[in-house]
Amino acid sequence: MQITQLNLPDRMIDLGVGQPAISLLPLEAMKTAAEHRLSQRDPSPLQYGTEQGNGYFRQALAQFLSQGFYTSVDPDELFITAGATYGLDLICTYFAQPGDTIFVEEPTYFLALHIFADRRLNIVSLPVDQNGLIIEALEEKLAEHRPAFVYTVPTFHNPSSVTLSAPRRERLAGLSEEHKFLIVADEVYHLLAYTVTPPPPLKTYDRGETVLSLGSFSKILAPGLRLGWIHAARPLLKRLTRSGLLLSSGGLNPFTSSLVLSTLELGLQDDHLRFLKNTYRHRSAVLSDALQEFLPPATTFSEPQGGFFIWLSLPAGMDTGKLRQVARPKNVNFQPGVNFSSRQGLQNCMRLCFVYYGSEDLREGVRRLAGVLP
Amino acid sequence: MQITQLNLPDRMIDLGVGQPAISLLPLEAMKTAAEHRLSQRDPSPLQYGTEQGNGYFRQALAQFLSQGFYTSVDPDELFITAGATYGLDLICTYFAQPGDTIFVEEPTYFLALHIFADRRLNIVSLPVDQNGLIIEALEEKLAEHRPAFVYTVPTFHNPSSVTLSAPRRERLAGLSEEHKFLIVADEVYHLLAYTVTPPPPLKTYDRGETVLSLGSFSKILAPGLRLGWIHAARPLLKRLTRSGLLLSSGGLNPFTSSLVLSTLELGLQDDHLRFLKNTYRHRSAVLSDALQEFLPPATTFSEPQGGFFIWLSLPAGMDTGKLRQVARPKNVNFQPGVNFSSRQGLQNCMRLCFVYYGSEDLREGVRRLAGVLP
Repeated sequence: MQITQLNLPDRMIDLGVGQPAISLLPLEAMKTAAEHRLSQRDPSPLQYGTEQGNGYFRQALAQFLSQGFYTSVDPDELFITAGATYGLDLICTYFAQPGDTIFVEEPTYFLALHIFADRRLNIVSLPVDQNGLIIEALEEKLAEHRPAFVYTVPTFHNPSSVTLSAPRRERLAGLSEEHKFLIVADEVYHLLAYTVTPPPPLKTYDRGETVLSLGSFSKILAPGLRLGWIHAARPLLKRLTRSGLLLSSGGLNPFTSSLVLSTLELGLQDDHLRFLKNTYRHRSAVLSDALQEFLPPATTFSEPQGGFFIWLSLPAGMDTGKLRQVARPKNVNFQPGVNFSSRQGLQNCMRLCFVYYGSEDLREGVRRLAGVLP
Repeated sequence: MQITQLNLPDRMIDLGVGQPAISLLPLEAMKTAAEHRLSQRDPSPLQYGTEQGNGYFRQALAQFLSQGFYTSVDPDELFITAGATYGLDLICTYFAQPGDTIFVEEPTYFLALHIFADRRLNIVSLPVDQNGLIIEALEEKLAEHRPAFVYTVPTFHNPSSVTLSAPRRERLAGLSEEHKFLIVADEVYHLLAYTVTPPPPLKTYDRGETVLSLGSFSKILAPGLRLGWIHAARPLLKRLTRSGLLLSSGGLNPFTSSLVLSTLELGLQDDHLRFLKNTYRHRSAVLSDALQEFLPPATTFSEPQGGFFIWLSLPAGMDTGKLRQVARPKNVNFQPGVNFSSRQGLQNCMRLCFVYYGSEDLREGVRRLAGVLP
């Protein structure tokens, strides 16, 4: 019986998996949090919650985020979601219509492309370099299109691991105000910073009430909780809280919110995030070192400064989709670059993830990968 | 700080509230369930779950529903949602497009009307009598329209409390197969049967893979859990499980599912449902008796056989929207009928709910209501 989303063959090392390992999940912390919350003789977390999310939870979350972002977060600018994906889904419903044009990065989060395709949105892609989304390319496309929104992963990008520089954040927010498009910033990796402090989330740069920043407990606590937030100006959040959907459901995850409130109050979330950052920083270095040791020099990548991923570029003309057919029988796998392209490009690239496996498997995976490279 | 969705003035008795009372929520059961589940040293409920929902949970749920429905439920025909509202939202995304026509009942669940309006669906309404949706009216409208789906509350209807008869269920399912429209059956009150055994849910009558039955733990356990299901044929469920949304999020509520699995395994859900049915059956009788005792004979209603509501009809020409302005200063409130109409009708009706208040408040509320009736 399949329990979790992932179902891997026994000896496979799948460096394409973008999930935390089961062994890293905070079972003890959640047990402590549940005991703490459910011993308080307060049944209100079991009732329909306020549409925006419980106020005490939003206060504690704002405090936690203010520390993590090094900038003040207003609890009234937080809307609690059932995960970042659900947040993105809500934004597609309430801020776009089928047939609308949206801009995405090339590469971009591959499952967001599926979501946008399901919504019949027209996708226009924008290139990315070492400092993130290239603003000049955005300006050019704005002369041709009027997008409903720009979808960006500004910090520790999925899959390319780059971070949008502070000056570009300023310019992106300015263009958004000037051209009246929304920015949907998928910032779920922001708090997983290993070797740098990234610029604050895009919401911080918002001048025209045009930025929706998506956050999630999936990357910092546990995916199965289905808990996240949208950080945005009040008028944007009101479009959500006054929707029929929210009036009918009440808050999107009040019970789980109340348990996660306990993880914040008891310092368990802080402890777990510290543990994850230490673990992932180490794994990131192990994967980088192994790639440098085993792969041919024509294969290039940048060492990640945070997040989950390394984006590997093979020589032009290589096809990682085909390479995967050779790799799988050798018990190694990865995400081919084409999955992250909205126009069948990036075929010489691949995404590797360093959070799912421990050091030995990471090194063995790279050894196997080197064995199938020509 | 507002904790729950509801925020009532102190002395108000609001018979319009359609929620369980805080005091009826199963805090001890959820505490026991959390201890049971989180002591099992299995962190998998914290991981991304399978898109359709955890298999063990679907098996236990199928067994529970088979008993409650008096008909066999296949776990592979269950898809786990984050509540019935979210289920309806998913159906709007994956089975309809803005501009599509849908059929609803008159009256219908008022917040579903908001959700459909947000989705820019064209609403055509169908009348209801003591045996539910009038099939001849549906047949007439099918000559004029080709709906994406018919939204119906077949059992212990919200707000009118009527139940669709078995022969009509057969005919509705037959028409759905013949005319190729979907049936979206909101069956969240089905298990709250007090004085009758209703016909099984509409899924049972499905012949052409056209029925989606929505269920929820909100009415039988706790709304704050945001946990429900869609009961439908596999090909319909695949549209959901293979969506970008589900591939990205994994299962919609794996952590809470795992705790509710414990309430099923430990018999806590059975106990709580029995408790709720006894409590609500009594409250239903108290409200019915009080209405007969205090209200003028021209005010008519049917005694509910299950669910949450009594639908009160005042003499034609009365306007319960205006009446509410007189009632509120007297500290009594209700849902005016017009809210449940997609065409500004039902102005002489009102919805009263008997699950939120205890006997004394119910009787006092009706006394106050009688005082403002002309």
